[in-house]
Amino acid sequence: MSATVQVWRGGLIESVHSVVIAVFDGHGRSRAQAGNIEHVTFARSAIKPMQAIPLIEDGVAARFAMTPRELALCCASHNAEPRHVDGVLALLRQFGITPDALACGPHMPLGEQAARSLRASGRQPERVHNNCSGKHAGMLGLALTNGWPLEGYHESGHPVQQRMLREMSRWTGVEASAIPVAVDGCGVATFALPVSAMARGFAMLARAARQKESAAALILDAMGRNPEYVAGENRLCSALMGAVEGRIIAKVGAEGVYCAAVPSADLGIALKVMDGATRAGEPALLAVLRTLELVTAVELASLTRWAEPAVMNTRGERVGSIRVSLELRPL
Amino acid sequence: MSATVQVWRGGLIESVHSVVIAVFDGHGRSRAQAGNIEHVTFARSAIKPMQAIPLIEDGVAARFAMTPRELALCCASHNAEPRHVDGVLALLRQFGITPDALACGPHMPLGEQAARSLRASGRQPERVHNNCSGKHAGMLGLALTNGWPLEGYHESGHPVQQRMLREMSRWTGVEASAIPVAVDGCGVATFALPVSAMARGFAMLARAARQKESAAALILDAMGRNPEYVAGENRLCSALMGAVEGRIIAKVGAEGVYCAAVPSADLGIALKVMDGATRAGEPALLAVLRTLELVTAVELASLTRWAEPAVMNTRGERVGSIRVSLELRPL
Repeated sequence: MSATVQVWRGGLIESVHSVVIAVFDGHGRSRAQAGNIEHVTFARSAIKPMQAIPLIEDGVAARFAMTPRELALCCASHNAEPRHVDGVLALLRQFGITPDALACGPHMPLGEQAARSLRASGRQPERVHNNCSGKHAGMLGLALTNGWPLEGYHESGHPVQQRMLREMSRWTGVEASAIPVAVDGCGVATFALPVSAMARGFAMLARAARQKESAAALILDAMGRNPEYVAGENRLCSALMGAVEGRIIAKVGAEGVYCAAVPSADLGIALKVMDGATRAGEPALLAVLRTLELVTAVELASLTRWAEPAVMNTRGERVGSIRVSLELRPL
Repeated sequence: MSATVQVWRGGLIESVHSVVIAVFDGHGRSRAQAGNIEHVTFARSAIKPMQAIPLIEDGVAARFAMTPRELALCCASHNAEPRHVDGVLALLRQFGITPDALACGPHMPLGEQAARSLRASGRQPERVHNNCSGKHAGMLGLALTNGWPLEGYHESGHPVQQRMLREMSRWTGVEASAIPVAVDGCGVATFALPVSAMARGFAMLARAARQKESAAALILDAMGRNPEYVAGENRLCSALMGAVEGRIIAKVGAEGVYCAAVPSADLGIALKVMDGATRAGEPALLAVLRTLELVTAVELASLTRWAEPAVMNTRGERVGSIRVSLELRPL
């Protein structure tokens, strides 16, 4: 069983991406796969939903009366649209923490419109514009609530990151001591896991979410009901969760990672594009969802630009397309 | 024999790129290789030096007293720095052609500084900012000189593109009828060739360039002596040709293609990153040059940022690096 994503130009494949795909159910059983699912790679931002669980279980959400939108923002790789930036700043104010406590580095907004607006204003990007600033705000709230120092909360030895590591282990079933740690694009600790373990982790989240008011239910519901807070305009995570009305919870990670939880089907999905290309991960995820009949044709119709992206040239002509070739061991 | 480019984060490989590499000599013999060198893919902008040969042989350069800098610009994927934009506009004026005859679509300048300046000016990108505008200007000059219509010069059926196709066939040894054609990012016809044929073509160019005043010598010399006109600031093509004082002529193409001619060693080199990633093609080219002892350690010292690029995060921390693992069948 294998999965490739082919970039066509005219009548030829110009470039090709290899994808590892794992689908697990809530009993921890593999239900479909392609490629070597024991391949270990960094989960990057895809595991933000797991990293948000302590906001519920350690009492941050209750203490600060966090809204579902704020929880979604803590799981986001956001576009730095006004709603995202304002939302993170408001959350920090509730915590009584100033934005300079954020450890994430500044970068131009991921969102095109947000980047244009920031440039037009003549301002430089700030830490709050980092696509991970919601997660960082949540981690600051977690440190505050647990009485841990705010300083250094992003470093792997800090109690916040040790808490994250335990959470990774809890959902994925991988021993904490066997999880390699490195530094993410935003500066925080990032965890490496087999693709199979990421899928198992999302299946466990999906299963846990079937119990109302559980931490997993609150986090996944917050994402599914506020998809525009998890990514933003022109982003697959938001468009997909919107199209399926939150039935599927999807989260992208850098370097070609995508994870999803489908509570109604008791499934977790994880994929990694081996070369790290985002352009391949997006159509691959939709191909998996289509093949497993987890999305309808009507739902997919609004997602065509990600399902089979056009290759356009600078003259605005369509000169090719990106297509998925997928053999999945079926359910 | 194989070649991969590994993207490391901390102590783990996060993503990996597979690269096909072909090295041929001026007798048309394979001298080193990795991967399936008969793999057919679009050569994209890497073959611009071949596409500039007719400027000499059809008398465009002589008729309009083109300077070496202008010839280099016709081989460029430039940054749209002022020297590039002004150079293309000046060339068009010499031809008596207005910039609206350019068929290439507008895009933001490849050069960071040039993009910043254009944004600050409040102007939109124009066709002349397209990184291929020099090649397009040259094609317009070719049409003019040959008495062909300017209209539609970018289309595969036009005499200009038929001339290009014959030139591809001449250098690479592939029958014109066996060369697939599609549409490039700039809108012009683009040609697909086995990686082996691209290397053979560059070896033939290298060999031809050993004869003074030949078209190949004039084109490669123009590039080697004016590397900043072939790409620009912070670009490997320019930095490499500058570091080796034109001893190696290198030209990048989109989707992970890189070609080079080394007349002094009677060699042509071509590589394709199978997934199309530029970040892998650059270190792969330098690894090939180092392995074949075509560059010295001193020359490489100024190219470290392309030879083993750092993976940085938004905090400005070095969190990994890109490294090449290369087994080449030796010379």
